Amino acid sequence: MFSSPAPPSGLLEKVFQHIDLHQDEFVQTLKEWVAVESDSVQPVPRLRQEILKMMDMAADKLQRLGASVDFVDMGTQQFPDDQSLPIPPIILAELGNDPKKPTVCFYGHLDVQPANKEDGWLSDPYTLTEVDGKLYGRGATDNKGPVLAWINAVSTFRALEQDLPVNVKFIIEGMEEAGSVALEEVVRREKHRFFSSVDYIVISDNLWISRKKPALTYGTRGNSYFTVEVKCRDQDFHSGTFGGILNEPMADLVALLGSLVDSSGHILIPGIYDKVAPVTEEEKKMYAAIDLDLREYQNSTQVKKFLFDTKEEILMHLWRYPSLSIHGIEGAFDEPGAKTVIPGRVIGKFSIRLVPHMNASVVEKQVKQHLEDIFSKRNSSNQMAVSMVLGIHPWIANIKDNQYLAAKRAIRNVFGTEPDMIRDGSTIPIAKIFQDIIQKSVMMLPLGAVDDGEHSQNEKINRWNYIEGSKLFAAFFLEMAKLH
Amino acid sequence: MFSSPAPPSGLLEKVFQHIDLHQDEFVQTLKEWVAVESDSVQPVPRLRQEILKMMDMAADKLQRLGASVDFVDMGTQQFPDDQSLPIPPIILAELGNDPKKPTVCFYGHLDVQPANKEDGWLSDPYTLTEVDGKLYGRGATDNKGPVLAWINAVSTFRALEQDLPVNVKFIIEGMEEAGSVALEEVVRREKHRFFSSVDYIVISDNLWISRKKPALTYGTRGNSYFTVEVKCRDQDFHSGTFGGILNEPMADLVALLGSLVDSSGHILIPGIYDKVAPVTEEEKKMYAAIDLDLREYQNSTQVKKFLFDTKEEILMHLWRYPSLSIHGIEGAFDEPGAKTVIPGRVIGKFSIRLVPHMNASVVEKQVKQHLEDIFSKRNSSNQMAVSMVLGIHPWIANIKDNQYLAAKRAIRNVFGTEPDMIRDGSTIPIAKIFQDIIQKSVMMLPLGAVDDGEHSQNEKINRWNYIEGSKLFAAFFLEMAKLH
Repeated sequence: MFSSPAPPSGLLEKVFQHIDLHQDEFVQTLKEWVAVESDSVQPVPRLRQEILKMMDMAADKLQRLGASVDFVDMGTQQFPDDQSLPIPPIILAELGNDPKKPTVCFYGHLDVQPANKEDGWLSDPYTLTEVDGKLYGRGATDNKGPVLAWINAVSTFRALEQDLPVNVKFIIEGMEEAGSVALEEVVRREKHRFFSSVDYIVISDNLWISRKKPALTYGTRGNSYFTVEVKCRDQDFHSGTFGGILNEPMADLVALLGSLVDSSGHILIPGIYDKVAPVTEEEKKMYAAIDLDLREYQNSTQVKKFLFDTKEEILMHLWRYPSLSIHGIEGAFDEPGAKTVIPGRVIGKFSIRLVPHMNASVVEKQVKQHLEDIFSKRNSSNQMAVSMVLGIHPWIANIKDNQYLAAKRAIRNVFGTEPDMIRDGSTIPIAKIFQDIIQKSVMMLPLGAVDDGEHSQNEKINRWNYIEGSKLFAAFFLEMAKLH
Repeated sequence: MFSSPAPPSGLLEKVFQHIDLHQDEFVQTLKEWVAVESDSVQPVPRLRQEILKMMDMAADKLQRLGASVDFVDMGTQQFPDDQSLPIPPIILAELGNDPKKPTVCFYGHLDVQPANKEDGWLSDPYTLTEVDGKLYGRGATDNKGPVLAWINAVSTFRALEQDLPVNVKFIIEGMEEAGSVALEEVVRREKHRFFSSVDYIVISDNLWISRKKPALTYGTRGNSYFTVEVKCRDQDFHSGTFGGILNEPMADLVALLGSLVDSSGHILIPGIYDKVAPVTEEEKKMYAAIDLDLREYQNSTQVKKFLFDTKEEILMHLWRYPSLSIHGIEGAFDEPGAKTVIPGRVIGKFSIRLVPHMNASVVEKQVKQHLEDIFSKRNSSNQMAVSMVLGIHPWIANIKDNQYLAAKRAIRNVFGTEPDMIRDGSTIPIAKIFQDIIQKSVMMLPLGAVDDGEHSQNEKINRWNYIEGSKLFAAFFLEMAKLH
């Protein structure tokens, strides 16, 4: 698919050879890690013990590499039924503290989504099974494989008795799939200690947009989530005894919700596009270069027709333009059947995905003003209340940052291609937490292919992605050192 | 409040005197009947036995008056948990079969809604308790009091050794509050037997619109209930990963629902008002005469402002104009919280209350055409499907029918006033069943006052309503005989 990479020279060549030679050992370790049912979603004592075991295995592995490892105890998690379960400790580990080297911190998680053979797995989800170069198993791509690839990169330098080109730190948690309980607290608490020397943060917890072509993720959309309540009275009415004489809250609400976006997806709130960054020529080129098979994308999503016909338009509308979605209505009749109710009080819910350089507080004002205008034109006797219940700013990295340049060079060295420069249409909480608290450059450097099936049955990571990914991280260390 | 009625002469005077003299006995019988916890709503063996006991007491009472009584066994009712309970038999009774007299059939029910002292009753719900002329007890007004008033009228003629002016039939059930299980089947089965000689059907199972002024009910609105489904695909989407490139089903649906009715309550479906009967001068007078205290109505309903300011407009829009209510949406996000979902398939629900001379099938065509027009203008790639899941025609009686004329005269004789001529904005299943199957004149002749609180705590019937109601039925028999 790609041109062959230029032959590596010197140390890099040795590193690649070592990784190729030891790839079966690396797969074997992944097999041992996948065998641990570290499911954090189901709050069951047995599974929580499995996560603790998993964290111990990882700590042990890091210590053998010479890392100093700190277990941050996060206490227990209380459930409404009075049950309490231990929160797995968060691992903070470091290798090297040479002030002349850059310090790169890797984030990963070792807990997994639930998986049962009966759900449609073709092999036991906790027995890593290789078929045609694909390594099937729960957690293989999300996120045990990438965590191990980073460790493999470090261990290769150790095995070759080479100095690590960068100082490496690890923050590894065991509750990501359960909402990263306690992670933010640790990051906040360690801001001026563990994180004080960190220059760059690398996350490898998402996927490429392609099956074959590597990617670098440099932005996520933000989100502003709104509720709009229309109230006549607290109780509902019977449509036989009141239908015809009321300003019905549902009629007001559908008019309000219907005023937000037109059938081409264009948001109708005045001023909403004012701060959206204009598309640059450089950006256009990045979008054009992205490897996306539209037909395959359409088939896999089971959508008959999208609003746009080209790859560039579709990706830009997912990543760099705002979008408005109406999620639903609380308080109306939502069950099967035919109930003749006039809901007395209803709450519409919608959200706007934010992009650079939109600002959540400005959007809040625009939305409120717009809805008030529409509502006042209706001359309804009901009461309306609009509220922004969530306002998350978009995240965008500077792709001229050293770590992006280093990652691009490393990708060229390993894969012989430029990466797809991608964003994510949704907010990724982990990236947000690091960005907001540590305020250092965050980069998402995925290893998994688009068809890895994270969270679903038959999750896998390709052997190729896992092994080349280990090389990629090693090459990244070397490039970072060069750029420093 | 009203002018005194003209002094009754001859037989009517004797009837009134008898009823006045024996009113404590009548109240005592009502007390015995209210004491039976004939709750049909809770499917509990003990309560079902209470209903059976209640039906036995009524049959015994009717037999003592000389009626021939038939118990129609309706078998058992099966519940999902494999429980089965007996369905109380339906009483079919008759007194007299003189072909020269008109035959009036009275419908009533002896089951009640659940009631517990703890729910906020000021007295034991199953102990009829008189306070300031109000007889408090579950079933006092709904419907034991009115059934007994009819029996009191019959028994008065018997006690005075007077021939009954009309042939009287009774159909009395014990499952009305549980949806009249089996009633329709009995009516259908007995159409050519028990009901073959019936000329008029009287129901006394609703309330006046006033506290003091009697009423006659001559119509109910029908209803056409619609679902409109908009589908992109069966599964939902995440608004982060799909927001911006889809025709979102919710955006289509709120546009469709928003096209149905304007903020003044006017229905926007072309042609929908074409068949609505024009208001006549006679009708205007009837509406003007109705006793409704707007301020009190507003307070009791807790509605800040109605769409109309006058009594006439409000009542006409509840009774004789169609109305459109949007009930809710199935398939969207309907819970508390902030879920960022794009529902893949949503079903909007709304209904139009039908009035003479609208036709449900015509309305169905109009609604479908309208929604198709709106949807096609959106040029959406989603699929839309509209369905009328319920189509009930409006019911209107001819108020020039003999029984309406007789009832008006009887009301003048007893209360010294013209009745409020009222309708009901909702469909009343009992009236519909008789109307559709027997196809004889149906009249609703309520005895209870607007504040009787049927179905709620502290249900009551005023002693005055109960006793004057017994007189009213007796006077009605006499007037029917005169008009025949």
